[in-house]
Amino acid sequence: MGSFFTRYNIEERSRLVQAASGRLPADIVIANVNIVLPHTEEILENHSIIVKDRRIAGIVEDESISKHISRETLIIDGSNNYVFPGFIDLHVHIESSLLDPVGFSKIVLKHGTTTIVADPHEIANVLGVLGVELFAKASVNLPLKILIDLPSCVPATDPAFGLETTPHVISDKEIEHLACFDNIVGLGEVMDFLSVVNASEKVLRKLKVASEKGLIVNGHAPLLTGGLLNAYISAGIMSDHESTSYHEGLEKLRKGMWLYIREGSAWRDLGELSKILLEKSDCELCAFVSDDVNVYDLFTQGHVDRIVNLAIEYGLDPVKAIKYATFNPAMRLHMEDHIGMLAPGRIADIVFSKNIKEIEPHTVISNGEIIYYKGELKKTFPRYKYPEEALNTVKLGSLLENLGFIPRIGEANGVARVNTINVQPGSALTKRTVEELIVENGEIRSDPSKDIMYVVVADRHKGSGSFSVGFVKGLGFKAGAIAQTIAHDTHNLIVSGWSPKDMQVAVQEIVRIQGGIVVVNEQQVVAEIPLKLAGLMSIEEPEEVFKKYVNMVEVLREKYGLNFESYFMTLALISLPVIPEVRITDKGLVDVSKGRLIPLVEEFFKA
Amino acid sequence: MGSFFTRYNIEERSRLVQAASGRLPADIVIANVNIVLPHTEEILENHSIIVKDRRIAGIVEDESISKHISRETLIIDGSNNYVFPGFIDLHVHIESSLLDPVGFSKIVLKHGTTTIVADPHEIANVLGVLGVELFAKASVNLPLKILIDLPSCVPATDPAFGLETTPHVISDKEIEHLACFDNIVGLGEVMDFLSVVNASEKVLRKLKVASEKGLIVNGHAPLLTGGLLNAYISAGIMSDHESTSYHEGLEKLRKGMWLYIREGSAWRDLGELSKILLEKSDCELCAFVSDDVNVYDLFTQGHVDRIVNLAIEYGLDPVKAIKYATFNPAMRLHMEDHIGMLAPGRIADIVFSKNIKEIEPHTVISNGEIIYYKGELKKTFPRYKYPEEALNTVKLGSLLENLGFIPRIGEANGVARVNTINVQPGSALTKRTVEELIVENGEIRSDPSKDIMYVVVADRHKGSGSFSVGFVKGLGFKAGAIAQTIAHDTHNLIVSGWSPKDMQVAVQEIVRIQGGIVVVNEQQVVAEIPLKLAGLMSIEEPEEVFKKYVNMVEVLREKYGLNFESYFMTLALISLPVIPEVRITDKGLVDVSKGRLIPLVEEFFKA
Repeated sequence: MGSFFTRYNIEERSRLVQAASGRLPADIVIANVNIVLPHTEEILENHSIIVKDRRIAGIVEDESISKHISRETLIIDGSNNYVFPGFIDLHVHIESSLLDPVGFSKIVLKHGTTTIVADPHEIANVLGVLGVELFAKASVNLPLKILIDLPSCVPATDPAFGLETTPHVISDKEIEHLACFDNIVGLGEVMDFLSVVNASEKVLRKLKVASEKGLIVNGHAPLLTGGLLNAYISAGIMSDHESTSYHEGLEKLRKGMWLYIREGSAWRDLGELSKILLEKSDCELCAFVSDDVNVYDLFTQGHVDRIVNLAIEYGLDPVKAIKYATFNPAMRLHMEDHIGMLAPGRIADIVFSKNIKEIEPHTVISNGEIIYYKGELKKTFPRYKYPEEALNTVKLGSLLENLGFIPRIGEANGVARVNTINVQPGSALTKRTVEELIVENGEIRSDPSKDIMYVVVADRHKGSGSFSVGFVKGLGFKAGAIAQTIAHDTHNLIVSGWSPKDMQVAVQEIVRIQGGIVVVNEQQVVAEIPLKLAGLMSIEEPEEVFKKYVNMVEVLREKYGLNFESYFMTLALISLPVIPEVRITDKGLVDVSKGRLIPLVEEFFKA
Repeated sequence: MGSFFTRYNIEERSRLVQAASGRLPADIVIANVNIVLPHTEEILENHSIIVKDRRIAGIVEDESISKHISRETLIIDGSNNYVFPGFIDLHVHIESSLLDPVGFSKIVLKHGTTTIVADPHEIANVLGVLGVELFAKASVNLPLKILIDLPSCVPATDPAFGLETTPHVISDKEIEHLACFDNIVGLGEVMDFLSVVNASEKVLRKLKVASEKGLIVNGHAPLLTGGLLNAYISAGIMSDHESTSYHEGLEKLRKGMWLYIREGSAWRDLGELSKILLEKSDCELCAFVSDDVNVYDLFTQGHVDRIVNLAIEYGLDPVKAIKYATFNPAMRLHMEDHIGMLAPGRIADIVFSKNIKEIEPHTVISNGEIIYYKGELKKTFPRYKYPEEALNTVKLGSLLENLGFIPRIGEANGVARVNTINVQPGSALTKRTVEELIVENGEIRSDPSKDIMYVVVADRHKGSGSFSVGFVKGLGFKAGAIAQTIAHDTHNLIVSGWSPKDMQVAVQEIVRIQGGIVVVNEQQVVAEIPLKLAGLMSIEEPEEVFKKYVNMVEVLREKYGLNFESYFMTLALISLPVIPEVRITDKGLVDVSKGRLIPLVEEFFKA
C-alpha cells in the first residue's frame, strides 16, 4: 500500500532524527520563508525548513538554524515566498493527457503536484494486467509519486453479453494479484453501479479483495440518490467524483462519502460544489481531483494549481483551498504520516509561490530533491523502455485490406431506414434516430445534407477481423476522415468519414504509426498525434506532444473551422456501450438501455 | 489491523445492500430521531436509521421507512432523542480500571463507548507476550470493540542496566509476532524518548516493524519541545497524549502530531487544551482520550461521555465535542469506513441521549446489537476463562518466610544517614533527602515523628528471592501497612508500613489472594481488593469490584482520614525507575537521573 515511498529505512531515519536535533547538518535549508500549514490552517511567517535525505527534519525559527548548516548544506533563501506541501491529486487518468507516466510527471511537477493516484483504466482495457504493471514499474523511479488505483470495471460490459470484443478481464483474481505490487493504494471508480446495488457477487468479490488488501475503494455514481445511493455505499464504496450539483454533493457527503471535487478538461464541477465548501466551516471529506486533463490544458493552464486558484477565485481562503489539495487527500490515503503536511518526518514535497492568493509554483522539491528551481527543470527524466507488446497494439491483420467502410444491404438500389447515432460534439450523450438513406447497388450512402457520415469500429487487439459499420449524425466534421485508437473503453479502432478512400488512408496511417489520432483530407494526412503506448499515449517528450496537439487544433480550426477537442472526445465515446442511448462497437449497434445489439437497417424499400 | 471487526463478509454485505434498497427488511429501525452527523457537523432532525446485521444500511426520511419494515423488524421510537456514533477512546489502559477487558466493556458500553484502543502495557510487564495475547483473545467476542496498541516500552529500563528484575522483554521481534493478531492497530506510547531522540537502533527497529505492519505509532513526550520534539516526531511517532499546556499542545499540533487530549482519573488536561479547540474552527488532529480511569470514576462519572460533557461545559459546541470522540479518532485509526459516523456501510454503533447539551447515554447499540436499553443491560457478558498462569502470578517462594522488612546495618546501635524517598501523595514526582534514623542492634528504625516509614519491593514474578528495603517519607499513611501488586512498571510486590508484623500480614494476604491491594492495621486486614488477573485486575463482576473499591475508600477515609486514591497511586509509582528523582526496585534505591543504584545508607555513626 504505497510502500515504496513510505518504507521505513533505519539508516535514513537515524540521519533524519540526528538532523532534527542538530547533530547532523541538513541537506537543504529553506530559510526565512512563509510556511503554509494546512493541517492547522495557519501560515508560519519567516521560519525555516530543515530537509535531510528525502524528508523534513523540522521547521525552526530562523535564529536557531545555524546549528543545522554545514558547508555541504544547500541554503535556499525563501524570503518573500510562501511554501506549501506538494499537491495530491486523488483521481486522475494519466492516459487522458496523451502522455505516458514519465511525460505526465514532468509537466505536473512543474505545477506543484508531487503525488497522484492514477487509475490506469484505459491502458488496462488495452493491455490488461500488463498495462497496470507497466504503470507501476514506469512510475517507480520518478520524482512524482504515482500511486495506483486498480481498475474495477475492465471490461465495461460483461463479456457474456457479447456486445463487443474485449481483450481483457480484470476480475477479483487479477485484483488480488496486482494488489501486491508497490504503490497500489485503491480500487478505482466502481462504475458498474447497477451490479453494486443489485449486490452482484462478482462485484462484491472485488470489494472483498480490496478490503482485505487494505485498499481504499472509490466510486463513480453520477446522480445516484436515496436508497440506491445508500445501497451503493453500503457495499463499501466510500468516495465519488461524479457529483455535479450542490444537492448531489451534499447528500453524498452526509452519507459519509468522500467528495472528490472534480475540475478537469472536460468536467468542471468546482463552481457548483464550491458552494458546499463555502457554506461549511470545514469539509474533512472533500478533496480536489482532476480526473482527465489533456496535454494542452496541462501546458497552458496547469494541474492541481489551476483548481486551487479557481477555488480561491470562487471565494475560498487560500490556505483552505490548499488544504483540499494536500492535507485532506493525504488523510484519504491514510498517508498523513508521509505527505500532505510540512512537518517533521514527512517527505519533503515543498512548493514555492511568491503569491498565496494566486499560486504560481516556481520551485518544486519532491522527495527532498529539487525538480524545478525558479521555473527551470533541474532533473532529467529518463524515458521508460516499454516492451514491444505495449508499443505495437494495433493488430488489424487481414482486415487492413478487407475493411469495408460502407454498410451494405443486398445488391439493389433503394432507400434504407437506418438506426443512426445522433451526437452533439462536446456531449457524451447520444440519441437514436431512424434516418432514410439512399442505397446504390446495395451500398448505403452517407448524406452530407443531413450531416450523416460513416463510422466504423474494428477490433484492433486480437486481429480477429471483427468490425462493424454504422452512421453518425451531427458530428459536423468537415474534413475527409478522422481515425483514432482511443475509443472507450475497449479502445478499438474507430474511424469516421465521408469517403471510404479518406477513411482507408486514415486507417493505414494509424496502423503505420501503431496508434494515435489521424485526420485525413483528400487522401492526405493533414494532422496526426502518434500514440504508440497502447495506442493511447505518446512516448515522446511532453513538449513534442504538446506541439503536435497544438498543430492538430490549429489545422482543424483554421482549415476546417472545427474544434478538435469536441470531435476527438465525442468520437472516443461513441463506442462506449454503457452510456445511453445508442453506441457502436466492433459487433454492431448497441441499444444501451436494453443492453443488446440492434440491427443497422430497420427497413429497406427497393427503388 | 483491526481485521476482526472490519472483515468483508460477502453474504453480510449482500444483505446490507439489499436492506439499503428496501429489498430486504431491516433488523432494526430507529424511527424519527435526531441524528448527529459529526463528519458534516450537522444534526438531521426526525430521520430514521436502518440497521441490518452489524451495520447501518442507511439513513432515510421518515416517510420512506415503510418498505424497510417487516414483522421481524424491531422498531425503536427515537422521538425526542438524539443519536450519535459510539464513542472511540484512542488510548486507555484497561488495567488502571482494576477491571479485566470483560468487566471494563460492560461498564464503558453503558456510557456509550463502543470502541477503545487498549495499550496493555501493564499486563505485558507481568506476563509478556502472553498478556497481550490474552487481551486480544478475551476481547474477541465482546460487544466493545477492543483494538490494541502493542506496548513499546517493556520493560521500562534496559535489563542491561540491572536496575530491577524484569520478567519480560518486548522487542521488535515480539512486536512483529504480535502484530499478526487480530485487532492490533498500533504501537503504544513510546515513552523512552531519550532513546528516540538519540536514534537508538533498538527503538528504530521497533518503529520499522510497526511501520511495515501498518500500525499507527503513538507517542508519550511530556514537555518535549523544539529540536528534540522535531527529532522525536521525525522518527515516525505521530501522536502524543502528554500535553498539559496550551503552548505544548499547539506546538505538537503544528508539528503534525495528533493531539490526544487526555481527561482521566489522574490526568485532567481538557481544561487547558480545550483553549486550542475553542480557538480554531476545527482541529482535525485532535481527539479525546481517557488514558487511565479507575473503576470508581467509571461508575460514578462515566467514560468518554464525561469528557464530552466537560468539553461542552468548557464552551464547545456539542456536535464538535462529539466529533472529537467519534469521527476524529476513527480517522486516526484509518477506520472511517467502519466507525465514527452514522452512515451507510458503517458498523451500527449508536448511542441515544435525550439531551444533546448534556449527554446521558441510556440506550446503546454496538455492532448492531442492543446492549443497553433505557439504562437496562440487555446482553450477557460471559466471563473469559484465563489460564492459571495468568491468575497465579505472585511467586515469592521461600521469600515469604524470609522477607526482611527492616533495613540493617551491622549489629550495633547508632544513627544512620539514610537516602530517603520523599513523596507527596497525589504527585508522581519524588525527591531524595538524606535523613538521620536511629539504629538499634543494626536495625534502622522508621520514624513516625518525621513520617518516615518502611518500604519494601520484592520480585513476585520469578520467585528469585530478590528484594530491597528502604524508607519513604511523607506518605502520611496512618494505618499499619499497605501492600499491593500494582507497582509500575514491573509490578513487583510493594509494601509500606510502620511495623514489620503488619507488613507481613499484608504480604501473606497478598499471596493468599494472588494479587491485589491490602490494607492492614494491628495485624488485621481492614480492606482489600483482590486483583487476580496478573495481580492487576479483578476477574469479578465490575459491580463487585466497585463495591470493594468503595469499601476501601470508606475504610481509609473514615477510620484513618486517608485518601485511598493518592496512596495507592503514589505507592504504585515509587518503584518506577524512569521518573526523577529517586525510586526503589527489588534491587535497591535508584538514582533516576544517573540511571544507577545508590546505597541506602550514606553514613553510620555508632552510638
